[in-house]
Amino acid sequence: MNINVFSTALDIVGDRLDGKTAIVIDVLRATSTIIQALDNGCKGVIPVKRIQDAFERAERLGRECCILGGERGCNKIDGFDLSNSPLEYTHDSVAGKIVIITTTNGTNAVIGARDAEITLIGAMINSEAVARRCVRENRDIAIICAGTHGRFSLDDISAAGAIIDDILKYTNGRAILDDLAINCSYIYRHNKNNIHQFLKTTQHYKRLSSLGYSHDIDFCFRKDTTDTVPFVKNGMIIS
Amino acid sequence: MNINVFSTALDIVGDRLDGKTAIVIDVLRATSTIIQALDNGCKGVIPVKRIQDAFERAERLGRECCILGGERGCNKIDGFDLSNSPLEYTHDSVAGKIVIITTTNGTNAVIGARDAEITLIGAMINSEAVARRCVRENRDIAIICAGTHGRFSLDDISAAGAIIDDILKYTNGRAILDDLAINCSYIYRHNKNNIHQFLKTTQHYKRLSSLGYSHDIDFCFRKDTTDTVPFVKNGMIIS
Repeated sequence: MNINVFSTALDIVGDRLDGKTAIVIDVLRATSTIIQALDNGCKGVIPVKRIQDAFERAERLGRECCILGGERGCNKIDGFDLSNSPLEYTHDSVAGKIVIITTTNGTNAVIGARDAEITLIGAMINSEAVARRCVRENRDIAIICAGTHGRFSLDDISAAGAIIDDILKYTNGRAILDDLAINCSYIYRHNKNNIHQFLKTTQHYKRLSSLGYSHDIDFCFRKDTTDTVPFVKNGMIIS
Repeated sequence: MNINVFSTALDIVGDRLDGKTAIVIDVLRATSTIIQALDNGCKGVIPVKRIQDAFERAERLGRECCILGGERGCNKIDGFDLSNSPLEYTHDSVAGKIVIITTTNGTNAVIGARDAEITLIGAMINSEAVARRCVRENRDIAIICAGTHGRFSLDDISAAGAIIDDILKYTNGRAILDDLAINCSYIYRHNKNNIHQFLKTTQHYKRLSSLGYSHDIDFCFRKDTTDTVPFVKNGMIIS
C-alpha cells in the first residue's frame, strides 16, 4: 500500500488519484467542521466553490431544508447561517438539514479529489477511524491537504502525519511512504505531545488564534474524538 | 526579511518571485555539480531544458569550447561529455570551458526562477556562503527546491533547511519563515548529525544509492566545503 501526500490540491495533476483512496484534510477547520456536522445529524454536506453557488443550491433544494455554512477571510459570510466553526454545528443547528459549505481552501480540496476511487474526509478528530477505513479499502492512498491559499500548511501536514502513523500501526509498518508522507509522519511523531506549541508560529494557526478562534483550534486538535468517516457520494458528503 | 520555500518549481505562480532573492536547490545533484564546475574553473554554466537544446547551443558556441553535461534517468546522456556527477567536473575536465547542462529536475528549477531579482545556486556544500550573500542582498528570499519529477523531495528540503538555519544565524533569528520554511528548518535541525540515516528511505536518495552513486551523495552532503555562490546572469550561471 503506497501513501502519497499532496500539500495542496494544486499539486494533483494527471492521473495521480486514479484507483486510489483519497483523504482530504483541512484540519483548521473545514474537514473538522464537516465531520462534526455529520456527527450531529445533518443529512449530508455539499461542498461548493463560490458563495453564489451556495445560495443557488439552497434555492433549488428548498432554503428551509438547508444550512449555509463556511467562511471568507476566516469569518462568516453575509446571509449564511453558520461560519466555519465546528462548535456552531450542534445537533440543534444541523440535525435533519443539508449543509451547503464553501470555504477558502477546504472545499476546493474536496472538489479536487473527484478522480479518486473513493474520497474520505479526514482530520485529527477521526484519524484512527480514517486509518482503519483505508486499511479495509486496501488501495493506494492519496492524502490531499487543503493548504492555505495554495501553499503548504503545517496544521494539515501534522494531521496527515497523525493519519499516516495510524495507518502504519494498522499495517504493521508495511505501507510505503513517499517523501512528503515521510515528512508528515516525522513532524507529527516528534510534536504530537506538544502540537500547539509546535504550530503556534505557523501562519494559519497564528491567524485563527489572533482572530479569537482558540476554542476551535482546541476542538480540531483533539485526536480521535469520533469514529465518523465521511465520504463523498454523487457530490454530497455523507457518513 | 521573509523566507518562502517552494517544494518544486511548479509551485511558483504569478508574482511570487518579484523583487526577491531566489535560491535554487537540487542538492542531488545538479546544483552541487554546477558549484563544483565553477569551483574548478569553468567559464560559466548554461542550463537548458532539452537534450537537443544542449547540442544546438554547443554548435553555436563552438563544440570545442563546450562541455555537455547532465543526465536522464540519473545516467549520462548519449553524446554528452559528462554525467551529472559532481566528481567528474574536475579542473582537467572543465577549466576554461562553458558547461551546458540539462537534468531532469534541477535545470528546470533554475529556468523557473527567472522572474526573481537575482537567482543564486545553492546546495549543502555552499550553504553558509549562500546565507551570507542573502543577508547582504537584504531582500525577501524565495528558496526553490527542484524536487523529483515535480514532487516534494526530502534531500532538497534538508538542504533548504541548512541554508535557512544559516540565514537565521546571520540575522539573529529575525527572518520570518513561511510554513514550509519552518518545516525545512525543523527537519534539518533535528537530523543534521545523521542526515544519511534520515534520508536513506527517501526516494531520490535511495535511487541514487542503488545505482552506485554513494560517492556523489557523500560529496553533496558535506556542508560548507566552498564559498562559491553562483548566480544567473543573462541565462548563464557564473560566479
